[in-house]
Amino acid sequence: MSAKPTPLSGFPELLPAARVVEREVVASLSRTFELHGFTNIETRVVEPLDRLAKGGEIDKEIYVLRRLQAGDEDGDSGLGLHFDLTVPFARYVLEHAGHLEFPFRRFQIQPAWRGERPQEGRYRQFTQADVDIVGRDVLPFHHDVEVMRVMVDALDALPIPPVSFQFNNRKLIQGFYRGLGLPDVTVAIRTIDKLDKLPAGTVAELLVSDAGATPEQAQRCLELATIRVADTSFVDRVRALGVDDPLLDEGLAELAAVVEGCAAGGHEHVTVEANLRIARGLDYYTGTVVEIFMAGYERLKSVGGGGRYDALASDGRSTYPGVGVSFGVSRTLIPLLADGVVAGSRPVPSAVLVAVTDEETRPASTAVADALRRRGIPCEVAASAQKFGKQIRYAERRGIPFVWFPGDPAGPGGDQVKDIRSGEQVAADPAAWSPPEEDLRPQVVVSNEEKKQ
Amino acid sequence: MSAKPTPLSGFPELLPAARVVEREVVASLSRTFELHGFTNIETRVVEPLDRLAKGGEIDKEIYVLRRLQAGDEDGDSGLGLHFDLTVPFARYVLEHAGHLEFPFRRFQIQPAWRGERPQEGRYRQFTQADVDIVGRDVLPFHHDVEVMRVMVDALDALPIPPVSFQFNNRKLIQGFYRGLGLPDVTVAIRTIDKLDKLPAGTVAELLVSDAGATPEQAQRCLELATIRVADTSFVDRVRALGVDDPLLDEGLAELAAVVEGCAAGGHEHVTVEANLRIARGLDYYTGTVVEIFMAGYERLKSVGGGGRYDALASDGRSTYPGVGVSFGVSRTLIPLLADGVVAGSRPVPSAVLVAVTDEETRPASTAVADALRRRGIPCEVAASAQKFGKQIRYAERRGIPFVWFPGDPAGPGGDQVKDIRSGEQVAADPAAWSPPEEDLRPQVVVSNEEKKQ
Repeated sequence: MSAKPTPLSGFPELLPAARVVEREVVASLSRTFELHGFTNIETRVVEPLDRLAKGGEIDKEIYVLRRLQAGDEDGDSGLGLHFDLTVPFARYVLEHAGHLEFPFRRFQIQPAWRGERPQEGRYRQFTQADVDIVGRDVLPFHHDVEVMRVMVDALDALPIPPVSFQFNNRKLIQGFYRGLGLPDVTVAIRTIDKLDKLPAGTVAELLVSDAGATPEQAQRCLELATIRVADTSFVDRVRALGVDDPLLDEGLAELAAVVEGCAAGGHEHVTVEANLRIARGLDYYTGTVVEIFMAGYERLKSVGGGGRYDALASDGRSTYPGVGVSFGVSRTLIPLLADGVVAGSRPVPSAVLVAVTDEETRPASTAVADALRRRGIPCEVAASAQKFGKQIRYAERRGIPFVWFPGDPAGPGGDQVKDIRSGEQVAADPAAWSPPEEDLRPQVVVSNEEKKQ
Repeated sequence: MSAKPTPLSGFPELLPAARVVEREVVASLSRTFELHGFTNIETRVVEPLDRLAKGGEIDKEIYVLRRLQAGDEDGDSGLGLHFDLTVPFARYVLEHAGHLEFPFRRFQIQPAWRGERPQEGRYRQFTQADVDIVGRDVLPFHHDVEVMRVMVDALDALPIPPVSFQFNNRKLIQGFYRGLGLPDVTVAIRTIDKLDKLPAGTVAELLVSDAGATPEQAQRCLELATIRVADTSFVDRVRALGVDDPLLDEGLAELAAVVEGCAAGGHEHVTVEANLRIARGLDYYTGTVVEIFMAGYERLKSVGGGGRYDALASDGRSTYPGVGVSFGVSRTLIPLLADGVVAGSRPVPSAVLVAVTDEETRPASTAVADALRRRGIPCEVAASAQKFGKQIRYAERRGIPFVWFPGDPAGPGGDQVKDIRSGEQVAADPAAWSPPEEDLRPQVVVSNEEKKQ
């Protein structure tokens, strides 16, 4: 350990003031999830490789674990780091089903790992916040509305730029395509999903060449995909396209219920839309789907997403349908911190630095600190008995707003506390004085520019 | 995912009610650390292998990471999962030194991994809570007292059986051995460390055969090692052994200061002792050392430990001395949970289940829940509009103490809330009613037997 270490690409690490922001975001998400009755779990970070590789196919860059000492032959543990929180959650539900009550409502905020090439918003270690409801064999649709609304509430409470929830419904798309008479609905969905990257004309050609659509069918698919509204008026617009199918009806009703349920409640930083081009590539979604975007950070693509899956897991006797949504904590915060959009107000929890007159009276300073702590005021005692001016600068460098000067027990002067920002200094009793509420703990500071948005 | 998964040995996972306990323990530790002005950091879970293998020697079972897709030749990432929080912290300090203020006071609560054979108290994934103070080039001794006192305060506040902090000091041991004229002080320390496992007579023989002591010197080493007191009377007892050395004097003064500093403050569940046989095997300790034991769980050996190291890290220009102590969260909690000594009062955060009369009025029930949440009361809405008796049993199975019955908006009856433990049912207003404070959140329940201790 003799040279300065270099950062590891894709493994971002936060300095203390930035970590203040991350902790407050995690605490805020947890508060909202718990207000809605979701219980927290944490899963181990490893899963057997065959569970990470669903159906034998592995399309993620998984990190596999090998024990260093075990020698080559049996060092491979057969374990890999999880690449999301859905696979471990599904396994947790199956493994512990006998001890859980269904519907099981849980949230989980943990890191996950992918051996991908690092880029902005894509890291090799990243923290996600997932909230899901899982039923045994059945899970009524109203839980779709419920779980999406929880995430809307949760993100509305965060100190981040406005986000947009863009909903669609797989039944709607599938019913529309089926009613339209498309021969290969699955390929059509995958093709429409490319509208982000390809011009509409190219997508129409691909629908004809790959999904077997007629040019007229391709046109209607594009018309469906361009519908994007912030209310339930999409229902009439889809109806106007003249396609009939019972699955389409079901999808329209579900999407309308999700949009209405999430738009209610007067959120300040969240907008809710039906966006009929949202498909989400993953095959296991079967109803509601959502992607979440952040204003000014569209380049990150979605900062979250999720949906309904009719078979999150199955153990042969029971099937576990689920609905959930995931928020990318690292993907969102690391660019915001880098851009200075959010910051921690100070890198230490201390609201007060208790000065030390000389080493002999350090116990008196410690006694002041203990008295403040008993009343919940975070503080620290100066590291050395330098001149008071130096101790004040020690506090300044750490962003500690107050410096406490213990009185001379032998003399007439009592304790004093100084607000080092204003310079104001007043007599104070460690058993009674408190800092203003906003100084008690480090705060998340949102840049003014952002507030104006 | 078709079969029921089997648990992975050494990777314990908690059910929701047990997780309540773990979260409260982590929150309580964090509260204490922050009251003392320690800032939280989180490091990435991986370190380069050469950093994990200090000086080329690897004595821990490290998990090495390989990228699955990369092919055999370049899949090995050169990275391993950290096996403690000290190595990553030392690297963090070196990497970010330019952005940190020294002395740097941090706490860190994260998992670590070792590929060891699992046994009680020893897991392959386990959570630790570390608190350290690190200086640049210098770190005054008073920080030893400070950081140990923080952990004493932190463990005193936890819902666990009483713990004992057993302190010693490397300078005291080394000075004593040197003053005694022992030829090989290092081997002598390692030999005395075996007093846990071997009878005193055997240790005395080893001191003669391995450390080159005379039988009389070996006898004095054993006499030193049997001194164990809960105050500073050890100073006179060591003096009575008639050994003189300036390093011994320094060690005696430091140990006395640590014992006095930690014994002060009226802790209820923590005892503090000087135990002069504590050595801690690791070579890098240079002053204060501590091991922590839990009453009734001596079989786990220590549940925590730490000490002073004069060179936690070095980058060629600066050396970073540190002092810290680590608490084994998993090692402590998993046996306590298994034995039923501690438990969560319920597996869900919800204090209230809002009943649903029929699916048409679900929005009214949701509105009640929203009103309760706005005042910070965690609640959930019943999953289905079963008969009220069934909805009450739904709450019972989850340990939710209250069921809320929305009034009929068309009829004369208003809302009512029932305490399902007592059966008491009263009229209530969702904008005004609150549960008793102790029902608001899940609590950690400590078994009565344990309380009597």
